[in-house]
Order: sequence, then C-alpha cells, then structure tokens
Amino acid sequence: MRPKLEDVAKRANVSKTTVSRVLNNRGYLSQKTIDRVHEAMEELNYQPNVVARQLYNKKTNIIGLVFPTVANPFFGELVEALEKKLYEDGYKVLIGNSMNNTKKESDYLNQLLSEQVDGLIVGTHNQGIQEYKYQNLPIVAIDRVMNEDIPVIESDNYQGGKLATTVLIEQGAKHIIHTNGPVELETPAKRRREAYEDTMTAHGLSPQTVTVDFNIPYQEKKDIFYQLFETYPDVDGIFASNDMDAALILQIAKEKGIRVPEDLLLVGYDGTIMTRSILPDLTTIVQPIDEMAEMAISILMKRIHKKETEHEYILPVTLWEGKTSKKDIH
Amino acid sequence: MRPKLEDVAKRANVSKTTVSRVLNNRGYLSQKTIDRVHEAMEELNYQPNVVARQLYNKKTNIIGLVFPTVANPFFGELVEALEKKLYEDGYKVLIGNSMNNTKKESDYLNQLLSEQVDGLIVGTHNQGIQEYKYQNLPIVAIDRVMNEDIPVIESDNYQGGKLATTVLIEQGAKHIIHTNGPVELETPAKRRREAYEDTMTAHGLSPQTVTVDFNIPYQEKKDIFYQLFETYPDVDGIFASNDMDAALILQIAKEKGIRVPEDLLLVGYDGTIMTRSILPDLTTIVQPIDEMAEMAISILMKRIHKKETEHEYILPVTLWEGKTSKKDIH
Repeated sequence: MRPKLEDVAKRANVSKTTVSRVLNNRGYLSQKTIDRVHEAMEELNYQPNVVARQLYNKKTNIIGLVFPTVANPFFGELVEALEKKLYEDGYKVLIGNSMNNTKKESDYLNQLLSEQVDGLIVGTHNQGIQEYKYQNLPIVAIDRVMNEDIPVIESDNYQGGKLATTVLIEQGAKHIIHTNGPVELETPAKRRREAYEDTMTAHGLSPQTVTVDFNIPYQEKKDIFYQLFETYPDVDGIFASNDMDAALILQIAKEKGIRVPEDLLLVGYDGTIMTRSILPDLTTIVQPIDEMAEMAISILMKRIHKKETEHEYILPVTLWEGKTSKKDIH
Repeated sequence: MRPKLEDVAKRANVSKTTVSRVLNNRGYLSQKTIDRVHEAMEELNYQPNVVARQLYNKKTNIIGLVFPTVANPFFGELVEALEKKLYEDGYKVLIGNSMNNTKKESDYLNQLLSEQVDGLIVGTHNQGIQEYKYQNLPIVAIDRVMNEDIPVIESDNYQGGKLATTVLIEQGAKHIIHTNGPVELETPAKRRREAYEDTMTAHGLSPQTVTVDFNIPYQEKKDIFYQLFETYPDVDGIFASNDMDAALILQIAKEKGIRVPEDLLLVGYDGTIMTRSILPDLTTIVQPIDEMAEMAISILMKRIHKKETEHEYILPVTLWEGKTSKKDIH
C-alpha cells in the first residue's frame, strides 16, 4: 500500500488541510509544522504528486533524449556527446529510441509534461504529435522542425549539399543522382536536396533525386539501390544523404562490377568518427557532432531557465575528402 | 540491519527533524550541523529512503544502463535492444557512458543504492569499484565479471575464439596473430584468447597475442597495428577481438599493399548489423545481441524480485563468413 495524504496527516498529527498546505506551499505555516509534515513524509516515504513538485520548483536533474536509434552511428555519437556533457553539468540522461513509434515519442513528452524530466532533446522523425502544441516547453530539436516555438539545432545542410554536389561536378561527373528521405518530412536535411538541385541547375545539369525512406528494412533499401542502377544506367556520380546508404551503394557497385571512383564517384553524409574509421576512403560531409551537442545543451538550459532563444542555430560542416570522389590522374 | 534516520540523528547528536532537514535541504542549518549529519550518514553508510522504499516496494520503473560508449556499434545495438525491450515492459532507461570513468560508474551505482533506479545493467570495463561489495543488488553484468554475487550474461567467447581461429587455420594460415584487450581485465572476452591459444597449440602452431587497450586514441591504435606488421613480417592471419580493430587492420593492410585475403586472412569479432552492412566482406563472429539483451532483462527481473539466479548465462555465437577469410580457389 502506498501511503496517502491522510497517513501523513495522522503521523504528523495535523489536519489533511495542513499537509496539503505544506505540499502546495500556501497559507501561513510555522517552520515547526512544516518540519513535522516533512518528517512524516520521509518516514512514510510519501511521494508528493506532480502539482506539489511544480510548486516546489523541484528539479529532477534528468534530461530526456529521444532519437530514432542509437544503433545508427550518427545518433550514437550524438547521444554519447550529449550524455557526456550533461553528466558534467550534473544531469542524468533518459534515453528513448523512437524510430517508427509515435506513441513512444508522445510517452516521453508526457514524462516531460508531468515533470519527471527537466527537459527534452529530440531528434526523431515522427510527425503530428499533439503534445508539441504546448508553448514554452523546455525542448530543443536537433535536425528537425517541430513548430515555430521549439528551437532547432542543425548543421548547415545547404552548405553540405552544395559542397557534396560541387565535388562531384568538379571531378567530371555529369549524371549525378541524389538519394534523400521523404520530401514530406519537415527536416532541415531537406536543404541538402535543395542545395543539390540548385547546384546542378547552376551548372546546366539536370538534378535527379531518388527518395529512400530511412525506416525501411535493409533488404528493401538494397533493392531500391539496385533498381537505381537499372533505371539510370548512365549514372556517374551519387550524393547519398547519409554514410550508411553510401556504404550500401559502395557494396552494390562492387557486386555489379562498377568501379569506384573510376566509373562512379560517391559522396556520403554525416562523417561520424566510426564510419571515417571503418571507411576512411569514403568522401563525406562531416557534421560537427560535438558542437551540435554543446549548442543543444546550452539552448536547452536557456529554455529551462525561461530565457529567450532564437528559432534556429546553424553550425558549419566540413568536407572529408576520401578516395571515392577523386579520379586519380595517371 | 540497515541504519535508520534515528540512528543518524543519534550518532550526529541532533534531532530527527534536523536530519530530515539536511536530507531535504530546507530550513536554516549551520554548515557545522550539515557536516556532522553527513559525516554520521557516511559512517553508518545510511542510504536515504531505502528502508521506507523497500517497505512500500516503491518502484521507479527506471533501469540504469552503464556501458563504455554507445558510439561503439556493439554497445549501440545492445543498448538499443535493451531499451526497446525494457520500454515494452514499462521501464524507462537511464544511460551512462562510463568509459575510463570509475567515478561515473560509482555514481550510477549510488543512484541504484539510493533507489532512484530499480536495477542496473552494467557492461563497463572499470575495475575496483567499492559499491559492488553490497550483496544481492539488482545488478546484471554483460560480458564482465564483477564478483561472485552478480550474474553475468555473455556470448560463448570460447566457442567464438575457437571458430575464428579454426577458420584461419583451415584456410592455410600458419602465422596467426590475435589482438585482444589487457589480460588483467576480468572479462569473459579473455576466453577468446584462451580458445585461440588452445586451438593454435592443438594444431602445432605457436600462438602470439598482441595486447591493445580499448581506451586508447585512434591514432595510437593505428600505430600499434602498423608496428604489428613490422614486428611480425610473416603474419598471414589475424584474429582481431573486435570488428573496429579488424576494420583498422584492413585499412592498414591496404595502405601497406598487403592483399586481403590473398596475403592476409582476417577475422573480426562482434558482427553487429552495422558493421555487417558497411563491411559485409569482413568475416566475423556474430554475438547474439538481441538474445543477450533479452536474457539480461529476464535475469535482472529475477534479481529485482529476489528470485534465485545462476552466476553465468552463456549464449551461442555464429560465424559470418565474408571474403576476408576465404582464399578463392582459381
């Protein structure tokens, strides 16, 4: 049996009203009464409810992180960077992998709303979640637009898309394909596509974007990329919107006897430490994960302390020049 | 008998109210009093709330996960599997990346002791942490021996080491080197080394293990593997104790003009979905991550409900046969 308000009242030898007053911190109360009630709560291990907590302005020192999946190296390294920095600031981290699961994301949001966490950093791709309509919540988004009220931390996706496309064009590719996520998603990553299309057009080339959903199973994705080579036999350059897709394209090219970079130039996106370790030859756009984590936390702290924030924070990307984008001149 | 609030009061020579005030950080208190109460709590090893919480069987529905780093694909996929299954069971997950940080691990343990989490799943490599001496804590270890009281979930490292070594020997390698972590660490992964050494000896070959610390920076690791090829110019097979190291060896071999598999056969370890996607050609031993996560949770639940558990749970591994271990017969 969980102890109730009346158990506390009985033990402290005061009325229920007094306990309620202590919990809600209102009316006149002597320090002696407050102490007695607190002592009774302690002895009974009474857990005051949410309202009481809000009124005491009590902090949980827990930040929730909601990302699609830490098994993806970009989110894995981002979550690690966030957790390390938050720990240094005295926070613990609750983690949720929300991919494909709107209910799960809502669930974490409700934890925030019921004050079991002090704030949320969210980087999922789910859509249409009702709870975001609440104003001024201590939430920060990474690479995702939720609404006008929630600040977004992102790397410069337009610059990244332009860099990637320019590298391919400069090395002589003419039939360059870009793979990207569904156009409906309100992610700043859409700007990679815009930059690709703008850059192609500016060079008199025709852009061709192939849509690939992130959430589909591995084999389905593989089929799509196989199909890509059938549909566009002239393709001589691919700008993949993430390194995992680029790695898969590299593998399929190998299976089909298409040589990289001789027959096909390839640029990926994300540039995690992990993929750069395993595949150092893959040219890619490096997102500044540590800086993004640091910025997200600093903006979240502003939100928690009710300070003004901008709507968008954009950090520069860099080019990792491997061998998949450079034709050796013999 | 665990110490109570009144024991602390008695020892500190203050009233119970004062102890309660210190615990709740309210009311006026001199630094001297605060110090005296803290000292008494320390001397008695008093854990606030534990008794009451145990009495009322109060659950937080939070499980703490302490792993070296989710940025490593093995731990990333393991943490994801744990979080998914725990969420389905109604638990939230607090995550700590503890690599190189004994204090951080102790910190999470103290959260457990002060009942802010219901249980811990630990897979770090830190040594000599005092808090583990407490008996019957709801803790489960993955791939790490902490003490006789804490159950360990592991994949069959001996079988894995034997499989890897046998594949290399069967393909004709004679000068096979094994890379592994420091021998002092009490990890079941040590058995990979034992299996390697036993299998080599059984085939009349001499085992040669090169020690590589997990925690050293990337460049240092690279230097060690470069050195390996200088020290053992005859090497024609390497069994790396994880896929990240195998990927690095693959890269160095390429830079040095050593052909894989023609001149060098290579087998890795872990076989995450991620590395098998990016490097499907790498032969590796696949740890059953999902099954390990499921087992860890089921054993942890037994511990939480004070049921009997075994000391060790061993799950079988499988061989992923890529192209790095197979000499094509032309």
